[in-house]
Amino acid sequence: MHVHLVETHILHSDRPFKLESGDTLPCLDIAYETYGNLSPKGDNAILIEHALSGDAHAAFYHAGDKKPGWWDPMIGPGKAFDTNKYFVICTNVLGGCKGTTGPASLNPATGIPYGLAFPPISIRDMVDVQRTLLTQLGIDKLQTIAGGSMGGMQTLQFFCDYSRMAASFICIASALKHSAQQIAFHEVGRRAIMADPRWNEGRYYNDIPPEAGLSVARMIGHITYLSEKLMQEKFGRARKTRHAPNIFRPSFEIEHYLDYQGIAFVRRFDANSYLYITNAIDNFDLITSVSGTGRTRGEGRARGEIEEMRSKKGLVITFTSDWLYPPSQGREIVKFFSALNVRTSYTEIASEHGHDSFLTNTSTQSELIKGFLDSL
Amino acid sequence: MHVHLVETHILHSDRPFKLESGDTLPCLDIAYETYGNLSPKGDNAILIEHALSGDAHAAFYHAGDKKPGWWDPMIGPGKAFDTNKYFVICTNVLGGCKGTTGPASLNPATGIPYGLAFPPISIRDMVDVQRTLLTQLGIDKLQTIAGGSMGGMQTLQFFCDYSRMAASFICIASALKHSAQQIAFHEVGRRAIMADPRWNEGRYYNDIPPEAGLSVARMIGHITYLSEKLMQEKFGRARKTRHAPNIFRPSFEIEHYLDYQGIAFVRRFDANSYLYITNAIDNFDLITSVSGTGRTRGEGRARGEIEEMRSKKGLVITFTSDWLYPPSQGREIVKFFSALNVRTSYTEIASEHGHDSFLTNTSTQSELIKGFLDSL
Repeated sequence: MHVHLVETHILHSDRPFKLESGDTLPCLDIAYETYGNLSPKGDNAILIEHALSGDAHAAFYHAGDKKPGWWDPMIGPGKAFDTNKYFVICTNVLGGCKGTTGPASLNPATGIPYGLAFPPISIRDMVDVQRTLLTQLGIDKLQTIAGGSMGGMQTLQFFCDYSRMAASFICIASALKHSAQQIAFHEVGRRAIMADPRWNEGRYYNDIPPEAGLSVARMIGHITYLSEKLMQEKFGRARKTRHAPNIFRPSFEIEHYLDYQGIAFVRRFDANSYLYITNAIDNFDLITSVSGTGRTRGEGRARGEIEEMRSKKGLVITFTSDWLYPPSQGREIVKFFSALNVRTSYTEIASEHGHDSFLTNTSTQSELIKGFLDSL
Repeated sequence: MHVHLVETHILHSDRPFKLESGDTLPCLDIAYETYGNLSPKGDNAILIEHALSGDAHAAFYHAGDKKPGWWDPMIGPGKAFDTNKYFVICTNVLGGCKGTTGPASLNPATGIPYGLAFPPISIRDMVDVQRTLLTQLGIDKLQTIAGGSMGGMQTLQFFCDYSRMAASFICIASALKHSAQQIAFHEVGRRAIMADPRWNEGRYYNDIPPEAGLSVARMIGHITYLSEKLMQEKFGRARKTRHAPNIFRPSFEIEHYLDYQGIAFVRRFDANSYLYITNAIDNFDLITSVSGTGRTRGEGRARGEIEEMRSKKGLVITFTSDWLYPPSQGREIVKFFSALNVRTSYTEIASEHGHDSFLTNTSTQSELIKGFLDSL
């Protein structure tokens, strides 16, 4: 069988990159992948945005890998984002740890990893980095921008900040801004990381990283990603080890599952990236950001471009059992964009997979997205 | 103004105490408080059961204290548990850290605190300890047993194991057994404690305790104790410090709130007690326990006594916004006891305080409980 292999590219830029905070990054690496071909007119590009723990590898296989990219069921020939038609781009976010500059990157000023010397970043900074890449790739039009969870936030921010570029958006299982409870879950994860002495104020890159803390943060995340019902059906009160040698080792299957998820995560993710990215998510507030009342630099730009939105379309998707980003938050997105005269469709997909549905429940999403893209 | 002062008493027993696990504690301290007076016939006693972080100090004031016991609005002259009528008893649970023997107590075999040498305990062990105290106090009849959350589990276990003693039960915001999600939240808290190097396999009593880990565990708890709606109304996205000196110090008010709750908790609670008690809660499974198919020693006793239940009454209370112990779990309790022919009433109280409602929403509870006690 022929396996379609892809690789992650890195664009290096030596131009100083100004952040929303006012800080400047002296240089920038942007990790990205592309699938399909850009049309001669350059009018068939789609930007895919990843969630908190995602990366640029959205689809197909890396050489030697057994698993494809994180949204592979959605991207490829004949799939929702049809690579026979579209040129699909996905980047690793600013602040990440999968090729794009982040706190684990070398700080040119010191020759050692940034750690906490990395400046605070925002969702707007993430999309500005993507804009830089698109310019380098010669792309100034996007058919759509699409993503779930934090990817949905980037989607909306990009759509508002660069509305002249984008014909539409697809925002899945996301929110205009975090609620107190959403901030709270993130905050406990951050505390767990920072409570780990190995975190050492972010200076651990020559040593064992704060695995225990990051693992706890990830375990909390996984509770919120699954619906209560699915967790009950999948694990219930079943036990893997009836009498654990130590009563405080995992015994219930749900405990083993969370333990496994925590361990798997620390192998592939940087604890400082977790802090910076969750901080960016919690501070995200689209309405304040685009109305210019926030501490943003995009004031005039956003206001002017909102006028352009009348010809545009949006698709908002939520999942019935998603209690982390509940349907009510999806309806707020619809309300906001409808008020801007964006023709915004809304679908609440019946799914029991909770927030994870945007990754797992791909067949219904595919149908909706295909229909939406065909309508553009 | 006259303030009614009370104090916690300690009953010391030098008789070996056998646990459900088969292990034996060589001796036992039981911390308890009583309010009101035992009638000459000894027929007016009520046993109050506390939740995970509670203690024997359920009502009135300790000398010098500004705050009364944890269920003070419910217990006192003219209140739901009317101390003009009833003799109210509350004990600190086995495994706790407020006077009753627990992992922080001195192990007579070694002369140092038990730590992890403390045997695993169960909800049944907790009520067996209470039974020991009641015998010492000369009490062999209870008008009712009442408690919320873990207190509700003890209530049901006591009612089933010693049904000849109790005329009724009042079980609030509780469950017959934990769901996978409930276990999951506890497990993450336990991991956070054990990930703290200061935990040191439970040997920290001569040193700084695992404050960071216990604090994270408590923060997780507090998220689950509040309803999403109340948290939003109370904190929303309000900030206490707009630009924190370090971006990863608390900035949002919800972050400060959780931080405060975490810090306050480590001052008053023992991390090993948190491990042992949450383990007892997760392993609690009333149906298995009383049907004798569990690893229990009470088989015959429970079966025989279930016959006694036909003349008894139960009251089950849940709260609409409690997502940790949702109303559906309350209805399961009703179903179980109705099948045993206990005349069981059920009320779902409209409240926005989430699981905390059993502590805060005392007026409606008081009315229900007064009516219930009058009907006995």
